[in-house]
Formats: sequence, C-alpha cells, structure tokens
Amino acid sequence: MTQPEYDPGPQIAHAASIDLGTPDLERSIRFFRDLLGMEVVDQVGGVAYLRAYQEFAHHSLVLTQQDEARVNSYGFRVKRKQDVELFHKRFQEQGVQAVELPAGHELGRGEAVRFLVPGSDHPFEFFHDIDKPLAEESIRSKVLSNSSRRRGLGVRRLDHINLQTSAGTVNEAEAWLQDSLGFKRREFARLPDAPDIILASWLSVTPQVHDVAIGVAAEEKTGQFHHVAFNVENFHDILTAADEIRDLDIAYGAGPGKHGIGQAMYLYVHDPGSGHRIELYSGGYLIFDPTWEALEWKLPELAYGQTWYGDVLDVGPGGSFLPTSPSAGLLP
Amino acid sequence: MTQPEYDPGPQIAHAASIDLGTPDLERSIRFFRDLLGMEVVDQVGGVAYLRAYQEFAHHSLVLTQQDEARVNSYGFRVKRKQDVELFHKRFQEQGVQAVELPAGHELGRGEAVRFLVPGSDHPFEFFHDIDKPLAEESIRSKVLSNSSRRRGLGVRRLDHINLQTSAGTVNEAEAWLQDSLGFKRREFARLPDAPDIILASWLSVTPQVHDVAIGVAAEEKTGQFHHVAFNVENFHDILTAADEIRDLDIAYGAGPGKHGIGQAMYLYVHDPGSGHRIELYSGGYLIFDPTWEALEWKLPELAYGQTWYGDVLDVGPGGSFLPTSPSAGLLP
Amino acid sequence: MTQPEYDPGPQIAHAASIDLGTPDLERSIRFFRDLLGMEVVDQVGGVAYLRAYQEFAHHSLVLTQQDEARVNSYGFRVKRKQDVELFHKRFQEQGVQAVELPAGHELGRGEAVRFLVPGSDHPFEFFHDIDKPLAEESIRSKVLSNSSRRRGLGVRRLDHINLQTSAGTVNEAEAWLQDSLGFKRREFARLPDAPDIILASWLSVTPQVHDVAIGVAAEEKTGQFHHVAFNVENFHDILTAADEIRDLDIAYGAGPGKHGIGQAMYLYVHDPGSGHRIELYSGGYLIFDPTWEALEWKLPELAYGQTWYGDVLDVGPGGSFLPTSPSAGLLP
Amino acid sequence: MTQPEYDPGPQIAHAASIDLGTPDLERSIRFFRDLLGMEVVDQVGGVAYLRAYQEFAHHSLVLTQQDEARVNSYGFRVKRKQDVELFHKRFQEQGVQAVELPAGHELGRGEAVRFLVPGSDHPFEFFHDIDKPLAEESIRSKVLSNSSRRRGLGVRRLDHINLQTSAGTVNEAEAWLQDSLGFKRREFARLPDAPDIILASWLSVTPQVHDVAIGVAAEEKTGQFHHVAFNVENFHDILTAADEIRDLDIAYGAGPGKHGIGQAMYLYVHDPGSGHRIELYSGGYLIFDPTWEALEWKLPELAYGQTWYGDVLDVGPGGSFLPTSPSAGLLP
Repeated sequence: MTQPEYDPGPQIAHAASIDLGTPDLERSIRFFRDLLGMEVVDQVGGVAYLRAYQEFAHHSLVLTQQDEARVNSYGFRVKRKQDVELFHKRFQEQGVQAVELPAGHELGRGEAVRFLVPGSDHPFEFFHDIDKPLAEESIRSKVLSNSSRRRGLGVRRLDHINLQTSAGTVNEAEAWLQDSLGFKRREFARLPDAPDIILASWLSVTPQVHDVAIGVAAEEKTGQFHHVAFNVENFHDILTAADEIRDLDIAYGAGPGKHGIGQAMYLYVHDPGSGHRIELYSGGYLIFDPTWEALEWKLPELAYGQTWYGDVLDVGPGGSFLPTSPSAGLLP
Repeated sequence: MTQPEYDPGPQIAHAASIDLGTPDLERSIRFFRDLLGMEVVDQVGGVAYLRAYQEFAHHSLVLTQQDEARVNSYGFRVKRKQDVELFHKRFQEQGVQAVELPAGHELGRGEAVRFLVPGSDHPFEFFHDIDKPLAEESIRSKVLSNSSRRRGLGVRRLDHINLQTSAGTVNEAEAWLQDSLGFKRREFARLPDAPDIILASWLSVTPQVHDVAIGVAAEEKTGQFHHVAFNVENFHDILTAADEIRDLDIAYGAGPGKHGIGQAMYLYVHDPGSGHRIELYSGGYLIFDPTWEALEWKLPELAYGQTWYGDVLDVGPGGSFLPTSPSAGLLP
Repeated sequence: MTQPEYDPGPQIAHAASIDLGTPDLERSIRFFRDLLGMEVVDQVGGVAYLRAYQEFAHHSLVLTQQDEARVNSYGFRVKRKQDVELFHKRFQEQGVQAVELPAGHELGRGEAVRFLVPGSDHPFEFFHDIDKPLAEESIRSKVLSNSSRRRGLGVRRLDHINLQTSAGTVNEAEAWLQDSLGFKRREFARLPDAPDIILASWLSVTPQVHDVAIGVAAEEKTGQFHHVAFNVENFHDILTAADEIRDLDIAYGAGPGKHGIGQAMYLYVHDPGSGHRIELYSGGYLIFDPTWEALEWKLPELAYGQTWYGDVLDVGPGGSFLPTSPSAGLLP
Repeated sequence: MTQPEYDPGPQIAHAASIDLGTPDLERSIRFFRDLLGMEVVDQVGGVAYLRAYQEFAHHSLVLTQQDEARVNSYGFRVKRKQDVELFHKRFQEQGVQAVELPAGHELGRGEAVRFLVPGSDHPFEFFHDIDKPLAEESIRSKVLSNSSRRRGLGVRRLDHINLQTSAGTVNEAEAWLQDSLGFKRREFARLPDAPDIILASWLSVTPQVHDVAIGVAAEEKTGQFHHVAFNVENFHDILTAADEIRDLDIAYGAGPGKHGIGQAMYLYVHDPGSGHRIELYSGGYLIFDPTWEALEWKLPELAYGQTWYGDVLDVGPGGSFLPTSPSAGLLP
C-alpha cells in the first residue's frame, strides 16, 4: 500500500522482561523452572535467563545472584531498532538521566537504554533486538507458536509488571508514563482520603488492560516493586497452581480470586529464593476501542475492583497494596 | 509528549460487527439472546441490534429478517473519524468500487464506507462513530468494564470473522487485505496439491492471531462465509456450551476442540434461525512481537493446526472447510 | 447367588430432600429455578416441589410459604420399604419420639416417619417410596441419566446437609447419628478450647465424605441449620456461579474456595426469598476403604481444613460457623 | 446400635488394583510417575508398586517387567478379612477354579484368592488386608485425606477397569458378575445386530456408574483388556493432560470427550512402555437410588452414549471397542 511518508516516533511494543536479584539463585531457578514450568535458556555465572513456553525471545526473566532481593531492571521492547535511540534522545531533551547499555549486557539482547522513571525512580530498560533461540530438542513443541512444550504449572509468558512509589511521586510518574512513553490509562482509582492523588493506575500500550500498573506504596518510598505477573492459559490453571503451591513450603500471598479491575483471575505467591511477589494471571478483557476512556473505580465499588470474588488481597494504609522489594538505581 | 507531526494513514481498529440475514428472526434472536446471552439493544422492524456483555458499542451483531440467509456486511471499526474518508479515497485511487452509507444506516452508527474486497467480493463496511448506550438497569453490571451482566452461555464479544473464496481469487484477496488494509499475516497454510495457492491465512491488525481469516472455499465461489466467532472467557465455557447445545434441537457443527493454529478452544454450532455457522471461541495466544513472521503449517502437522485435540473439524476437498452462506453484493 | 438368609436391619440410602420455609415463595422459586436451574415438578398452594437435572425422584427441595424462615424437615431415603417401619420401631425402643406421616404428606412421597435427633432436635423424616415423574417434554434430556437438561447455573443434585446444635448437645447427637442411624464419621475436629466436645463432624452412609455434617452452633441453641448443599459438575461451575451471583442483589456468603476437609470447591449464598444459606458444591474425594478411620483436624491445620484456598469462611466463637435458620419441632 | 446378628455374605468394596505386564518397565514408570504423577511406593526387582495421591493403600498399580504386555491380574478389595475365604468357598461350590495367594504375593497385600471369571476368563484377585505406608516426607501433603501431594497431571486414584470378551461369552460373564459377585448393572447396550447379546455393560458395587465394564471384543477372544481408568479431579485436568500428552511421543488414543454413559470426561492414551490403554477420567454422576434400574442405550442414541461431545471413540465391528491387551491365565 502506498503509505505517506511519516515517522510515528518511538513506540513501546510490550513489557518484555524483568531482572530479579535473588540471594538464592538455585532456589529461584527451581521455583521458576521446575514448578512454574519455565525454560532456562542460558546461565552464565550467577545470572540465569528464562522464558516461558509461548515466548520466542531469548528471555523474559533474568535471575541474578546477589545479596539484596531488589529488582535490577524492568525491560520493555520497542517497536523498531531506531526507537531505542529515539527514546534516548527524548529523555535527553527532557533532562531524564539515561545510560546506554551495550549489546549483550543481557545475554541475547541488543543495545538498550536504561533510565529512571521521573518521580518513581524505577529503572527501565528499552531494547529492540533480541535473539530467538530454538529450545533444546527434548522440550520442543509440535505447536508452531510455542517455543517449548507446556510444562509444570503452565506459565506461558510475562504479562505485566506492577510498581509502587510514594504518594508524593505517583502522579508525576503516572503522567510521565502516559505523556513520554505512550501508555494509555485504562482503569484507575484515587486515594479515598486524598482524591488528588492516584491510588493506582492500570496502563497499556497493547490491548491488554495493563502492561504496567503503578500505585501508591504503603511507605513513603520510591522505586518499590509490587509484583511481576506471568500469564497462564485458563482460570483453572490458577486453581491447580493454588492447590499445588499451598502444599509446598512457599510463601503464599493471596488468591485465587478474580479482579473486577481487568477481570482476570489471580494468585500471588513469593519466589522462595528471593521473596519477590509473583502473580499468576489468567484471562481478562482486551481493549480494541480507539476511543476508550479510563474507568474510575470509587468507593464502595473499589473493593470489587480489587477482588470481585475469591481470596481478598492484603491492602495497607489508604487501600495501597504492600510492596515486596526495592529497585536498583540508575547504574545497572 | 512532543510528537512530530505526521499522519499514519487510515487504520482499522478491530473487527466490530456482522449483519446476518435470517429467514426466522425470532428464532435467531432467541438463540443469540436467550441461549448465548447477548443483549438486544434495539429492534426496528425486521432488524435487531445485539451486543455481548463486554461490549459498549451499540451492536456487534445485526440480525436482519430476509428470505435468504446471506451475510449482508462485515463491519470494521477504524481508528479515527477521518479514516473512513481516507480509506474511501484509497479505494477510489485503486479503482475499488465503494459506496458511502449515511449515519444511521445501521442504528447507532456514524457514516460508513462499503466496498467489496477485490477478488473475494466480501462486502466490508468501515465506520468509526458508534453510540455507546447504557444497558437497561435490570441487567447492568457492577463491573465497570461490562456493559451488562454475564448471562446465558456467557458470550462476551465478537472475536473474529472467517471468510472463504474460490481458489482462483484467494491469493489476490489475502494479499489485498495486507497491502491495502494493513492486516498482518500471522499463521497460514498452502494448498497441499497446489502450493502456490493459499489454503487459509489468519490475519490481524490487533495482537490477536486473527481478526479475519480467509481461505479456499470447497466450491469455486467467491464471497463465501464460513463463520463468525464470539469470545467466551474460558475453555470451560466451551464445555458447558457443548453440553447444553448438544441437548437442544440445534445443528451442532464440531467441537469442543483446541486449534493448534491460534491455540484457542472452539465449538461450532449453527444459528437455528438462519443456519449460519457460529463459533464459540476461547483463549489463544497474543502476538506482541513487532518482528513476528507468519508461521506456515505444512503437512502432516497441518492436521494438528486445525485440531490439536478434541472433535475434528469437517473439511472438504483439499483440506478446505465447508462454508455455510453467501454474502451480499456491493449495494447493501 | 445363593446368599444366606439374613436381615441387615434398616439402612439409610442417602440424604434426599429438605423442606425450607420461606416468607417469599415466589422469590425463592425464582432463585432455585431460574438462577440455579432446578425444575419445579409440582406446586400446590403455597408449597413447591423442585428437583435438579440429575435427580429422578419427585423432589429434593420443598419450598413452603410461611412466615418464619425455618427448616421444616430434613428428608432421608431408606434402602427398603420396610426400613421406614424398622427405624420407627427402633426409635420407639429407644424412647425417641416419632410420628408417622401418611403417603402424600410430601407430594409424590410414600409413608414416612418423622422424629427429632436426640440432643440436637433436628426434625428428620425417613421414607422409601417416591414417584419418579418424567419432566415436561420441553426440558427432557437426551442423556438417559438426566431427568432434564442442564440449565441455569447447573445444579444437578442435593449433596448434603449441614446442621448445628449447642455445645452441650453436639456429642450426643453426633454419637446417635452413628450408633442408631449407621452414619460413619469420616473427618472431624474438636473444640480447641474444650477438646472433649466435637467442633464439627462429617458423616456419611455413602462413599461421600459427608451426607450430613453436624457442628457446634455459635449460640447455645439446638436445631440450628447451617446450609444445604447442591452439587454442580466441576470447580469451574463454582467460578461461573460466583461471577453471576456477585453481580445480582443476592446476599453472598463466602467463596469460591476449596475445603481441605472433603477437598470440594464451595460457594455459599443465601436464598433471597428466605435467607437460608445454600452451598454450591463440587468435587471432593470418595471413600471406598472399608477400614477407613476418621481423620482428625487439629490446630493449626484446622484452618486449612475449612479453607484450603480461596475466600475464607466466616467463623464464630471457637471456630464454629454461623448458622442461618432454626428448625421446626416434632409436629410437621 | 443393637443390630440383629446376621452375615451379609462376602462383598466387594471396590476395584482396587491392576497388575500390568510391561516389556519396558523404566518407560512405564516414567509415564505413570513423572507424567501422570503417581508415587512409586516400592520396587523389588522387576516389579514396581505405585499409588495415586488420594490413595492410602500400598498400591493400586503393579508394573511387572515381562516380555508380553498382558494384564496379570485385576485386583478387588473385599469388605472384611473373612470375605476372601467366603468368596473362595463360593467359587468352589460353583466349580469355579481358584487358587490361594499368600500374603505378600503382591508386596504389602494380605492373603488373596485368584480365579478366572467364568466365560470371560479374566484373572481376578480378591484381597482385604493391605498396608497403608506413609509417603516419603518430601512428598507428603498437608491435606489429611491425601497420601501425597498432587503432582504431574494429577492422577488421584484408580477409578475402574474395562474388560472385553467374545460375543459368545459376554452374557455369561456379565451375568456372573452380578449373580456371584454382587455387581449391579447400571447402564448397558445390546449388540444392534444381535440384541440377545450384551454389547457392553457398566456395573458397580459402589455408587459409581461402573467399577467394572465388560463388553464384546472386536475379535472372538476371551480375556481381553480394554483399559484401566485413573481419576482426575476436574474436566479441566483432562484438557491439560490432552495438551501435554499430544505434544509428547506417546500414542494418543481418543479424547478429550464426554461420555453420555456415566457423564464423565475421558482421555485415552497408551502407556509407552507397554502399549496398554489408559483412561484419564473425571466426573460423572453417582447412583444413590436403591431402586435404580439399569438404563439401556439403543440406536441411534447409543452414539451419544459413547461420545456426548468431543473426540469420538474408535469403535470396531458391531460398535465394539478395540482392545489392547490379553490377560494372563489362572496361575499368576
């Protein structure tokens, strides 16, 4: 088709990876590989690279052996190779500090730009190029759209990340995610006692209700991590996961339950190697409407938004969720 | 964000509606409303407008009383209001015949452009504006992202349409959908005995594996309709639907089963008022990779593509599916 | 086979029916028929007789219009016709007061004997003969083992009843159910603070973990009713029921969740006509071992027994559940 | 309760175990332990003893290394210790050849009597005593009614066995199972072309629709084995099993589908070590009615009886199923 010449500017494709620091790498690997069913694509020294059975990219999860269970980075894939540079240029124009990371900084990944989200200080890394290695033959699937066979509890892809920051910085960070990164606000709530402040906001660049959520931390801290969600195929996979995980010596968070916000089924557990909160997530609705306006949840319905049915989430002061881990600073 | 000025050109947002002609309107309404659980938003004379419980737009299904059970139109929503006109202009430049339809041609809908897909002759209608009426209070949901409560077998939105045309025209039509409408080919297969010809192709403008599929008809006819799919929340909803529909005097097509292509669960049944084939559809994977390359299914794995497990689809000569209904011509 | 002559004595076949008094009969009927999917087999004056789609007997649920939302009777079917009389004789020998009810006292039912469980005062009725009328042709199933088609939320049979009585009477009643009625204790717990007293006991004459449960009431009252459970086919039916019922103006109790005790999935709701607590119940394990010894749940695992995963049950003092309704006296 | 003195005669409690001969013991063990999730309780030389996670008895499956993939025995537990001897005496009176097997013939099992079913020649073994060893601590469950944690595809207990014999012997065998062993006929069909002959009969001593089924073999042979079924918790477990097994190099039989007969969900696969057909089985209805009369399936509904929905079973001449393996003779 003879499209007119234009440059849409840099765009994010999807939330693509996370680097979790873990004081007990072997235990974390057993959790993600043997229980959740992910593939260890590579392991170099104290760093393991994993992906789920519907992911072709080299990894969506990096597990890094280190003393502190912090999140080292939140990775996003951009739509075109030049978008890494175009975003970097935008950050420089805005005075947002950023550093370039060479190809291979994460194994299998091309050049990336790392920066801290203004206000919330979460370390994001944007990249485009990433290898798509074949899985070992012993686990390859006959289904062309699977990189390996379904195994374990059936985790199939990274779904979204959930961030927290202080009440004093959440509005700035949430606005910047929209204005500078192109995220659209899909659903949100305000702090009941301080309605000028966002309690939580669910944002996406895809038709998912959220690729990223950001909300107020229970403590007045920036850079907090609430959870990373991995997608499973059906609500029933959540029930099976709850059944098996309850019977193991793994810290069980909450669930199964169904969110009103997003309409997905959830189970929250904690990686026994690091304590990071991990959500298993299934279903939900998709937004194809180009004129979608963000849905605002208010009291008293807000409780339905968090838990439509099932095991209720633990919430802290002002309805905020309890975070698990801090994030790293600008230098990786 | 200070985005440079540009015009991305007209874009389709999603497959949005279908107008099914039915010789027995009341029976069709009972099927879609009372059994599948859709809402009749409006009915004017012999035309009923329905939507599913996660749809806010005025309708995704039009049922038109008429002698012949043909498909009157396939509706797509475009991203911006001006895209209706921009697409129309593109069609004129290409010599593709098109007609303008005034606002209200379908109740609640704005201006539209109607044209026949070159080669396959399927009547598409592109529109942007559409009303979003509140449901009657008696069926409204407490969940903000539902226009009404889940009812019946739990149909929640139109998912995709599946078209067929002659072996002599399928390549032209499939290429035009990509080149002129912006669909991306996600998975496909060639005719085993004539590999220059597309057996079937699954295409999308969204991260769904397909918003539209097009394949070879068993007979050498253009404009054939295979099915329209409505989405349900979970695989188990497909089992429940099979259980209930098998026990009714409704023509049962095939399923439940899981496609290898797209990885979704399916059940094919026929609207008892019109005989049109309707798919209930759940799950599948989403494509967020901006560098996705279409997956090609070849023999012998192609059989897994059609049916990974479960009740096998009826296929005609050369592996083609059997169509159910013709489509209308250019004039609505 | 040449079996030696013997008389095994009277035996209960299963928990067969319940008569719920309701101040709003029409609303109760709408709940059980239109929402849960039961069949109204007969209605005579202010009394309606209902059954579920896998039940052939005339009814498993009687709804009686009356001012007080009490339980009028708990019905059990005995294995042979003469067992009604044999049980009656046993009660007379034990000094347990009982009255004979003529055939037709409940429509479609043969002669019955009514008595109060010693200690707990719950009014039980034992019968053997019961009509098995065909359903109306419009709802008959093609499946030979279904009396009608699956409809609504898919309730398929009465599963069990759950009773409560005062701490001072629970041991006597629970022992009598075993010694005089032949129930076997399958799982149980003692009051943590008074281990001589049964907190709750799950008993059965069938391979189900319980046909009847009896436990300590939060208040020092006898004859209390906690709930009657109706069985649905799969865990997922519980999720669907939760989704739909949460969105209606019906008092939602607790769930979905999975009991450790019995390993079944549960959802507790309240009949909007009467307020009686109704459990939707799915799955669980069966006991075929003739040497089974009752499993005792102790603190801290007892919490897992009540809720293995999911929405936690409301519990009162000493871990007792909160009852909903009283029961009638000896005279029906 | 003061029960009158009587002896009910010997009774079967349930279908308890099967001894499958396998030419590749290690491969069979990997299938049942690593894929289906069973526990290897003991292994002595070429004989492995396995049980599922809801079974406390020492084993329900014996895998015996041997050249021929035959079934060595079908084990049934009787209700009382003396029933082994009482059944033996009955067989002697009937002239049914039987041999005594000492305690420990199968590890963990008490004394047993082995005999061939008159007509069909299937080698049954009746026993009562069986050890209930604790599982290794590493796999023990917090749920009191589980001997170990749910693992793999979630097989939880042996459900039933399905036998075949020649058209000339099926009536005799089926009648003898009822008359001499106390099985009740629950559902059945006659050979369409020879209605004096039982096509298949589903029989039970428990409320299950069948603990044993027996039908006509495609070939005129006695002692044929069709399958042994293991129970999983929910229909969805069948879907997950189909998904995973389809992707492995394991002979896939048929399914998932739902039987009209018994109303359970099925998946048939073949143990890759021996080729024996294994059914994964979920749900179904229970029979508590003491006056139940066997349901007869006739053409054309019989097809619904075999497959209500889903992947259709392979059937041989006259609607018979295809067997997989022969059984051993009288001497074990």
